[in-house]
Amino acid sequence: MVEAYVTIQTGAGTARDVVEQLRTLDNVVKASIVAGEFDIVAEVEADSERDLLGLISDDIQQFEGVGRTSTCIVLG
Amino acid sequence: MVEAYVTIQTGAGTARDVVEQLRTLDNVVKASIVAGEFDIVAEVEADSERDLLGLISDDIQQFEGVGRTSTCIVLG
Amino acid sequence: MVEAYVTIQTGAGTARDVVEQLRTLDNVVKASIVAGEFDIVAEVEADSERDLLGLISDDIQQFEGVGRTSTCIVLG
Amino acid sequence: MVEAYVTIQTGAGTARDVVEQLRTLDNVVKASIVAGEFDIVAEVEADSERDLLGLISDDIQQFEGVGRTSTCIVLG
Amino acid sequence: MVEAYVTIQTGAGTARDVVEQLRTLDNVVKASIVAGEFDIVAEVEADSERDLLGLISDDIQQFEGVGRTSTCIVLG
Amino acid sequence: MVEAYVTIQTGAGTARDVVEQLRTLDNVVKASIVAGEFDIVAEVEADSERDLLGLISDDIQQFEGVGRTSTCIVLG
Amino acid sequence: MVEAYVTIQTGAGTARDVVEQLRTLDNVVKASIVAGEFDIVAEVEADSERDLLGLISDDIQQFEGVGRTSTCIVLG
Amino acid sequence: MVEAYVTIQTGAGTARDVVEQLRTLDNVVKASIVAGEFDIVAEVEADSERDLLGLISDDIQQFEGVGRTSTCIVLG
Repeated sequence: MVEAYVTIQTGAGTARDVVEQLRTLDNVVKASIVAGEFDIVAEVEADSERDLLGLISDDIQQFEGVGRTSTCIVLG
Repeated sequence: MVEAYVTIQTGAGTARDVVEQLRTLDNVVKASIVAGEFDIVAEVEADSERDLLGLISDDIQQFEGVGRTSTCIVLG
Repeated sequence: MVEAYVTIQTGAGTARDVVEQLRTLDNVVKASIVAGEFDIVAEVEADSERDLLGLISDDIQQFEGVGRTSTCIVLG
Repeated sequence: MVEAYVTIQTGAGTARDVVEQLRTLDNVVKASIVAGEFDIVAEVEADSERDLLGLISDDIQQFEGVGRTSTCIVLG
Repeated sequence: MVEAYVTIQTGAGTARDVVEQLRTLDNVVKASIVAGEFDIVAEVEADSERDLLGLISDDIQQFEGVGRTSTCIVLG
Repeated sequence: MVEAYVTIQTGAGTARDVVEQLRTLDNVVKASIVAGEFDIVAEVEADSERDLLGLISDDIQQFEGVGRTSTCIVLG
Repeated sequence: MVEAYVTIQTGAGTARDVVEQLRTLDNVVKASIVAGEFDIVAEVEADSERDLLGLISDDIQQFEGVGRTSTCIVLG
Repeated sequence: MVEAYVTIQTGAGTARDVVEQLRTLDNVVKASIVAGEFDIVAEVEADSERDLLGLISDDIQQFEGVGRTSTCIVLG
């Protein structure tokens, strides 16, 4: 199991919509709108790095309003 | 009362328009065009974190020309 | 209750020690070593912004090995 | 008169001390501890760019605990 | 006289066009395409901060291909 | 011969397409999708700085999905 | 096998020493001094995320001159 | 001839000393204290990338007060 934190910059005025959509995904453990350098922090998990890439590229980044994403894989 | 500094990156040539619009908002205490990593610094206040999110998402980010915003909540 | 994500840059070779110390704090819900721009992501909670400042300034930043910290308060 | 916002990264556990010292300076209009990429935002003013450099280099950066500073001069 | 370095991020494949246009402006002393965090570094001068804002907002940012700009005013 | 690492931020959901296109270029020695601040790291080589600029501006940045690129020339 | 790119900021004047030491490590495939936001880019491999953490924390970060490191795990 | 812009972060209160020392170096064409993300911008030139590395590592980074440096090689 690969765990990761994904930070997301959202388009103007879209943070609420994006966080609602993220929360519908099974592999998203938790998602919060935050104040700071990015707009949303999501805790995700996947079976492998390849599946993690799929979750980010094919699910998360497909939601309207999702801009820059940065992925921090949990090492320990 | 929650106070925060919001740094704003504006689209090409829009800094003046954006700062004028910001100054029309009651919750914007002060807004200045600056030279540096971002284009505008706004001092804002709201009754709660939820209202702060609303001010940023539904007001500030709705102005044409507003790009990336980053929010620094005052702690003390 | 104020929730926040705190990203932490640690000194060379100290990530494991720092994450163990973080996990001893009641207000630290979760702490993980990650690969990416920072070394540790901690999920924290406090009764107020002022208490959050105390948690960061008087507890987290006092651990040996803790360098830059950046705090993202949860808005929704 | 030159106005500027100075963002300051402070050493571990020193934010409160630094903000108190900043508030003793005549040219510091306002100084706040914040949550975000940096630890303190100070609003300053000086008679010229050269005086602004002096304020930053000879006063603000001399306070113990002051690390990285970044200066955004107000343009309008 | 206000001197400044303006770093510019350009759109995909537009660096050469942008640097040529920059070199047509009287207030641009020098402009170079570089390898690094940004794509172009321009050395500019203006009679006042307000004129500097105009040069950036009404001239430089109007060129097609100009994305993020960051302005560093010379202090000494 | 000039060697460089080019970090690339890609548009939402395009990392796989972009990395495949990069691997078709003779001057791209290696290209990988990564988790972190950027999405792809490419190792490239060119006969001169001018050719490196051409590779980046006329080839890499022309692929659909390529956003911000940052070039780090190998010095030793 | 986990592959990753590790970017390293080195202390003043230490880049050459650090890159020589990196090249003595079996798990470092390649290490180069570069011009840009960081000083060295190293390509590394490890049997697992946990071993990768060990390589970074117990080997790379123990070399004198190694400052900030940022790890980008290869996803595909 | 290789030209480059070197951005320098200086230690607290040292910007003036560092810029004076930089101006004593033959390969430093121009050096200015600036307001922004970094403290000094220096324009440098060298006969080759290897000489550029020497100028940065053995001269510039040896001056007391010089912290982070970032080098942007001119491409055109």
